[in-house]
Amino acid sequence: MQTFAEATAVLPRGDAFEADLDPQWAVGDKLHGGYLMAVLGRAVAAASDHPHLNAISAVFLRPPVPGKATVSVELLRNGRRFDQFRARLAQDGDVCAEALITQGGLEEVDPWWTNATPPPLPDEADCFLLPSTPPGSDFSVPLLDVVEHRLDPAAMGFAVGKPATDGRVGGWLRLVDGSDWDPLSVLVALDMVPPVSLVLGVPGWAPTITLTAYLRRVPAPGPLRVTMHATDITAGRMDETAQVWDAKGNLVAQATQLAAIRT
Amino acid sequence: MQTFAEATAVLPRGDAFEADLDPQWAVGDKLHGGYLMAVLGRAVAAASDHPHLNAISAVFLRPPVPGKATVSVELLRNGRRFDQFRARLAQDGDVCAEALITQGGLEEVDPWWTNATPPPLPDEADCFLLPSTPPGSDFSVPLLDVVEHRLDPAAMGFAVGKPATDGRVGGWLRLVDGSDWDPLSVLVALDMVPPVSLVLGVPGWAPTITLTAYLRRVPAPGPLRVTMHATDITAGRMDETAQVWDAKGNLVAQATQLAAIRT
Repeated sequence: MQTFAEATAVLPRGDAFEADLDPQWAVGDKLHGGYLMAVLGRAVAAASDHPHLNAISAVFLRPPVPGKATVSVELLRNGRRFDQFRARLAQDGDVCAEALITQGGLEEVDPWWTNATPPPLPDEADCFLLPSTPPGSDFSVPLLDVVEHRLDPAAMGFAVGKPATDGRVGGWLRLVDGSDWDPLSVLVALDMVPPVSLVLGVPGWAPTITLTAYLRRVPAPGPLRVTMHATDITAGRMDETAQVWDAKGNLVAQATQLAAIRT
Repeated sequence: MQTFAEATAVLPRGDAFEADLDPQWAVGDKLHGGYLMAVLGRAVAAASDHPHLNAISAVFLRPPVPGKATVSVELLRNGRRFDQFRARLAQDGDVCAEALITQGGLEEVDPWWTNATPPPLPDEADCFLLPSTPPGSDFSVPLLDVVEHRLDPAAMGFAVGKPATDGRVGGWLRLVDGSDWDPLSVLVALDMVPPVSLVLGVPGWAPTITLTAYLRRVPAPGPLRVTMHATDITAGRMDETAQVWDAKGNLVAQATQLAAIRT
């Protein structure tokens, strides 16, 4: 089993980068969007003088398969405080994902102002450890063998026919290999919890049409807390907002996505 | 004075489009980001079989000046329910803004589920009509001569040395020419209110680094209500989330942005 850093590594190849997509970071047979964004972010980091991904907006055009992929990076703006890039992940000449990325620094300072308080969640040990293959299911989530995900039992009602109604779900996350979270692996954390639609009682997955993430600080060592909520589900479209908190209770990252569901 | 539709018109020119950027849609001498996104969206609409912009994520690379600009559009994904495009606005060969756009339909149906309630705001007539040139100021906002913006007085404390602390600001918006809001002009509405940082007492503008908007339905005729809030201001970076509601009380659009401020 590879570490996250190994699974997202890129090698310069001509004027682009080569990645080797790891089937472990997948939901069913689909590679996870946060994992693909991290691969794009890894290539941008190699092309920039600035150390950290600050913001990414991605569209997911067609699902890549595990194995070799090409990441190309184009500098759009070169700045003293941040650069901006376009990054594309392609396989066999077809573009699978494209993103706009802002690359800058993340400073270890307290917020100047914040309104963000960590979510109320039961203790990690009292949350429900999601199995990679649920008992009696033929659907497996290999990602859950590399990311330990303990879900808030308050969001589990759908599994026994009593869906929640508030459109919120939360949980705890650790990397199984014991490594600390970093700004790129946090991209995976931002889209780990089950779709809000599932928690509301709509069966099936909710594929991401587009996702935007902002990284706000380098996470402290220890588990992450994540919450996700939806605002509106209309005509087969759902918005979801995620927030991620580190073990010190600081907001580490936030994301919004537009997803497709069958209501 | 041009209507919004005229000010954002694009004409096919070879394999791209030509726009004529209107100095009226500006804050100081900087063209408004929502206006530039609408110009990009206009070109995408001309290139797609789908009628409405569903999602846009843009980076603002260098400010264009009023006058001729070129908009180029590349189809990234062609789908039955939505297309995805890259769109770029360039002037004299320099790219000023680049965006990833999802173009689909917007259906006139009630939400299947929603958590979204319109914000409590004083009546439109009891809100403060923002002047395009404040008395005693040498800074003008030409945009306020085409968009009538009445700000919630609760957010005005900063102007008399009593800044708000909750990081929320809201107001009412109408197009001065009397036309109804549409999914492209709503992009302007999503970034009209003063920066949350200003309301919190930090003088100066807060330039957008990147902005993502989701359109959720075609607005009903009448004024829009808009709210904006921030979550965290750290190391010169602020996130802002906007929501826009139509006269029927339905959520029309939502946006998030990462902005730069000097704290």
